[in-house]
Amino acid sequence: MEKRIIRQLTDIVGPENISTTEAELSCASYDGTGREYLPEAVLWPSTVDEVSKIMIISHREGIPVVARGAGSGMTGGALPVRGGLVLAMAKFNRILSIDEANQTAIVEPGVVTGVLQAEARRFGLFYPPDPASLKFCTIGGNVAEGAGGPSAVKYGVTRDYVKGLEVVLADGRVIHTGVRTDKGVVGYDLTRLFVGSEGTLGIITKVILRLIPQPKAKQTFLVLLDSMKEAASLVARVLSRFTPCTLEFMDRTALTIVADQLPMALPDGTDAVLLIELDGTTAAVASEGAELDDYLIGQPGVRLVRQAENQEEVDRLWAARRGVSPAAFSLRPHKMSEDVVVPRTKIPELVACAEGLARDLDLVIFCFGHAGDGNIHVNIMLDRADSRQATNAELAKQRIFARVIELGGTLSGEHGVGITKSSALGMELDQDTIEVMRMIKQTLDPAGSLNPGKIFPQNG
Amino acid sequence: MEKRIIRQLTDIVGPENISTTEAELSCASYDGTGREYLPEAVLWPSTVDEVSKIMIISHREGIPVVARGAGSGMTGGALPVRGGLVLAMAKFNRILSIDEANQTAIVEPGVVTGVLQAEARRFGLFYPPDPASLKFCTIGGNVAEGAGGPSAVKYGVTRDYVKGLEVVLADGRVIHTGVRTDKGVVGYDLTRLFVGSEGTLGIITKVILRLIPQPKAKQTFLVLLDSMKEAASLVARVLSRFTPCTLEFMDRTALTIVADQLPMALPDGTDAVLLIELDGTTAAVASEGAELDDYLIGQPGVRLVRQAENQEEVDRLWAARRGVSPAAFSLRPHKMSEDVVVPRTKIPELVACAEGLARDLDLVIFCFGHAGDGNIHVNIMLDRADSRQATNAELAKQRIFARVIELGGTLSGEHGVGITKSSALGMELDQDTIEVMRMIKQTLDPAGSLNPGKIFPQNG
Repeated sequence: MEKRIIRQLTDIVGPENISTTEAELSCASYDGTGREYLPEAVLWPSTVDEVSKIMIISHREGIPVVARGAGSGMTGGALPVRGGLVLAMAKFNRILSIDEANQTAIVEPGVVTGVLQAEARRFGLFYPPDPASLKFCTIGGNVAEGAGGPSAVKYGVTRDYVKGLEVVLADGRVIHTGVRTDKGVVGYDLTRLFVGSEGTLGIITKVILRLIPQPKAKQTFLVLLDSMKEAASLVARVLSRFTPCTLEFMDRTALTIVADQLPMALPDGTDAVLLIELDGTTAAVASEGAELDDYLIGQPGVRLVRQAENQEEVDRLWAARRGVSPAAFSLRPHKMSEDVVVPRTKIPELVACAEGLARDLDLVIFCFGHAGDGNIHVNIMLDRADSRQATNAELAKQRIFARVIELGGTLSGEHGVGITKSSALGMELDQDTIEVMRMIKQTLDPAGSLNPGKIFPQNG
Repeated sequence: MEKRIIRQLTDIVGPENISTTEAELSCASYDGTGREYLPEAVLWPSTVDEVSKIMIISHREGIPVVARGAGSGMTGGALPVRGGLVLAMAKFNRILSIDEANQTAIVEPGVVTGVLQAEARRFGLFYPPDPASLKFCTIGGNVAEGAGGPSAVKYGVTRDYVKGLEVVLADGRVIHTGVRTDKGVVGYDLTRLFVGSEGTLGIITKVILRLIPQPKAKQTFLVLLDSMKEAASLVARVLSRFTPCTLEFMDRTALTIVADQLPMALPDGTDAVLLIELDGTTAAVASEGAELDDYLIGQPGVRLVRQAENQEEVDRLWAARRGVSPAAFSLRPHKMSEDVVVPRTKIPELVACAEGLARDLDLVIFCFGHAGDGNIHVNIMLDRADSRQATNAELAKQRIFARVIELGGTLSGEHGVGITKSSALGMELDQDTIEVMRMIKQTLDPAGSLNPGKIFPQNG
């Protein structure tokens, strides 16, 4: 990058808030995909005015700009794949207000999701979106990628909690979208246009969030089943009668990986496990919990229903569920993790497809995730050093994508497109729909400086 | 309109599906605002291909096109203010599918909201958005305007139930946005860009909707209070402990209008009334209902709590709530009805502002609506034949809008902007934000044929 530009940027943020050292560039080069791309400079702006001035320069000079939260994204959203500037949003880390009576928070994008949750809890309030990375991921990243989590089955995803945004546009202008109130239909819904736009339309500098009352009680059930098919069928029946706040599943392979972490031995022939949670008022959870317990026992394919007796057992169940992903590396050194979604009744077809591919292509593939909303994490384990495995894993991914589309599904439920799925965009969306997205991108960022190389296929 | 164009349009839809007779033009000229604008032709297309071909002609010739459902909108969304074509969507009236296990409906835009609700109920499912016009308004209009209703306090608005859309663009191209699944973050959220865009970005020809399980039980409470201030304070406390599916209020003036329709005499000094409903499973509603009843009695300012004893009494309470608007015409022949939103704790300030304006400007102004989400229907009654009243009513509206913005609110919670609020858009949104909306409009509809004259101020 030209020295003249570095000088101008330094004038904006101060010499202590810009770096071109190898160490700092390296720290801004990776994310949850395991891939690395070095930027040319990292900046730590601390005001919207600074972000605006940086954008004016990048717009004029055609320099790529990528906003970065915690770098925990799974599809490359925070990677500076074309070099340029990384805007590390770490100094935008204030919870500006929590309005208890109106159940609204105003936060900066660098606030860690779990920190907001803890702060909301002090007011008796709840911010439901719960990506697995919630202890370190940031609200800005959650908004940019459209993050979800297990609680989505009852409470929805990040999109459902964003009321309004402050956004710096590609040319440095600052706009304010949405409302502070619970409702609002004045003009186009720019708020939700920016949610999930993966940093390609603007830099988010403030987020107005909806909070809800903190549920008072929770009950956790583990259900072991004979088959994935019976599990999926049970999921649909449970959701027609109850409103669980968690409805997770693991397939046979995932179960094997964490079997020794479960609080009981697995009966022979267990092929699927469901983790079901109810929350709400103490009285409601007590009555619904008893009803659910009664309902589950004796349903087709159910081998065992276990209600967690205490918080320790709940923690152990969740540790097993969350431990699947890390534990899988004991099988193969690398993982391709997809977050496809199918209508929930189609989960058995998708799991069967994954099992078939694992067999035919000699791979380890396991599935777990959000059975309640059909958002399945399909994990392909491989050793990239083995070129046959690498080829077969890529082939398996393509076939899974194709099957997902056949089943009426979508390629991403909560991770976004980024660079890992951009070449597959046309499998899901028709060309005119992609063209409308490109037109909006072109209109709002004619110089193409905002997070270039993301979402859109690069070959057309 | 040139005969050549009428001939081309007739070729597309057939002679029985186009009319230029005065009677038919008149039928497509009005909406809930009471204003009238005649189109030059009315068409009844019945396929997406026909809509596409019509748009190709209107795009080429620069002819205004306005889609029309039931004409029940409150801000002029369906009015052909620049003449041109009205696309009456009455033939797009099929419920294409209801997928019970995946809780999804696919419908055409001309389906009446109440008809969908009834059909969903047959499957044990529930489509929550409940605008007052639900017996005749259509899903297409609800989507275009971003309709809400009393149930929004628990269940959200139309936007929260739209998963995906088929849309014919201004140039006739057909796109497919969103997903059929419960989650999806692939590309920009075009679905929600079209929701609430008031027919200015495309013609909706298919809607994929989320359904939820039909609640089994409901309890209804009427609470009479000493003051609006105590009512609003109680609303905030109730919402921190319970999740009611309705939390409506009426102010003193509204109460006077329907006093004789209520199932009991009003104690002297009653200044506000709340209508609170809980729904859910039978067991949960029983326990929460008892808890709420206990909670309400003895709260500051509460004069009387009455739980509806049977469906007849519930119906009577709702008839009174819904009767406010029609009954008001006994006071003055005309009404200006605004659907502003403020943070719910600010409702007393807004009601006080309305009362002050009524006094100072010699008008009848009453407020009722959705206390739970701060969405207040402010109704200014007047006789338009009296020019002083007409001037004062307009002045009152402007002052109410200004107060709403001061209080951190928005000018519309569920009716949209249309023509009745377009001149006030700049009171709420900054110029750069409006400019971004204009850029999107210009990009998607360069000829400006889609519902011209709506949303944006016409003077700039």
